[in-house]
Amino acid sequence: MKIDILTLFPDMFRGVFEASILKRAQDMGAFSYRLIDFREYTDDKHNKVDDYPYGGGAGMVLKPQPIFDAVEDIINGEEKKPRIVLLCPQGESYTQQKAEELAKEDHLIMICGHYEGYDERIREHLVTDEISIGDYVLTGGELGAMVITDSVIRLQPEVLGNDESAVKDSFSTQLLEHPHYTRPNDFRGLKVPDVLTSGHHGKIEEWRTYESLKRTYHRRPDLLERAKLSDQELKMLDKIKSEDVARDS
Amino acid sequence: MKIDILTLFPDMFRGVFEASILKRAQDMGAFSYRLIDFREYTDDKHNKVDDYPYGGGAGMVLKPQPIFDAVEDIINGEEKKPRIVLLCPQGESYTQQKAEELAKEDHLIMICGHYEGYDERIREHLVTDEISIGDYVLTGGELGAMVITDSVIRLQPEVLGNDESAVKDSFSTQLLEHPHYTRPNDFRGLKVPDVLTSGHHGKIEEWRTYESLKRTYHRRPDLLERAKLSDQELKMLDKIKSEDVARDS
Repeated sequence: MKIDILTLFPDMFRGVFEASILKRAQDMGAFSYRLIDFREYTDDKHNKVDDYPYGGGAGMVLKPQPIFDAVEDIINGEEKKPRIVLLCPQGESYTQQKAEELAKEDHLIMICGHYEGYDERIREHLVTDEISIGDYVLTGGELGAMVITDSVIRLQPEVLGNDESAVKDSFSTQLLEHPHYTRPNDFRGLKVPDVLTSGHHGKIEEWRTYESLKRTYHRRPDLLERAKLSDQELKMLDKIKSEDVARDS
Repeated sequence: MKIDILTLFPDMFRGVFEASILKRAQDMGAFSYRLIDFREYTDDKHNKVDDYPYGGGAGMVLKPQPIFDAVEDIINGEEKKPRIVLLCPQGESYTQQKAEELAKEDHLIMICGHYEGYDERIREHLVTDEISIGDYVLTGGELGAMVITDSVIRLQPEVLGNDESAVKDSFSTQLLEHPHYTRPNDFRGLKVPDVLTSGHHGKIEEWRTYESLKRTYHRRPDLLERAKLSDQELKMLDKIKSEDVARDS
């Protein structure tokens, strides 16, 4: 997968893109990227990428020209228009489902603003997707572009080794993970639950499913509404709910 | 504000932490950070930070000892125990409200795992907060720690200049921003709405409020449920809803 990122701060990306899985994916040929400083595309003699907003008010607005020209330079000659993602607080909330959708593309372009608005014509006439990585305010779109890159590249075939991919991911199974323990069995008097050292695989699986359901019910009940639960899991959930009622009364 | 980050990948952070607002905040004395590779704290002769999970199964689990020891080394001698944040998919969903809460602290410690589980004793007996930046799977906690750092440092007094702080932030006003436009008025035949060039400030404000409500209603109706709207805004919202009904029928 090829990812092109339009940013005024290309130096922010190297540390993240040259480490761990993203580095390995490049070595395997599964990922390549370019960082494009769209200031280089401005036709303004002062190299300005922003200007005052029509209608007045504080803050500056990113001009359409440098961003349109940079994107068109990238896609010039490509047979198929790639997905063009605008990172912005007004975008759809990013989810694992969206990551899986974007991971199927061959080429992504991402546009990062930096504490400024985008001219609306970029939104309406250039991009295919507007994405927000969460309901919090960041200085720019760069961290969002890194988040999307990491989440889609790790989904490319064979990028993850067995150890990593075998870990059940919370948002692909729809439930939060059960607790994990490793050695020592007794760490400063804090012990591992007996069931995990019992060697009884059926009981261990049951404990894990129960704890996973309990954690999800207590912390993220919204995930349960969407999850497809088996009959056994539904019974466990009833038990968790009745234990809560008993404890609270 | 002082931020200490426990990570196995300290090199990932420099590009982000030495640019833009985070750089400026350091120059002003409003932000300092340390990157602590907790592998240096392991008492295992092979420097291993992880081990197999009790009860079997795929994936490795981060051991409690190196992380407990690294955190205790940091807080040794501090009068007040700082907030200790674990980045994990099982954590509470990060929001601007949480950013505002954390921004009041003098010292934060963040713990980043990397495609592995944490031993449950870290969760139960060491950390004060568990945070997830969104419902998607990332390779590690590092991007989450960068997101939290950016969001809390930009809230420190005087870190943002007037231009940046004056921009109305979507998640602090509860509504998504209205569209922005800047020059040229006509970009490739795409025109700026007449109202914005009318010079009529009352009409401009009204248009902006209306567009902000409309965008929020269409894209993020969940935000409207929490927003405190004025009588005038409620009337506008009714109009937006009835226009939708008229269009759809």
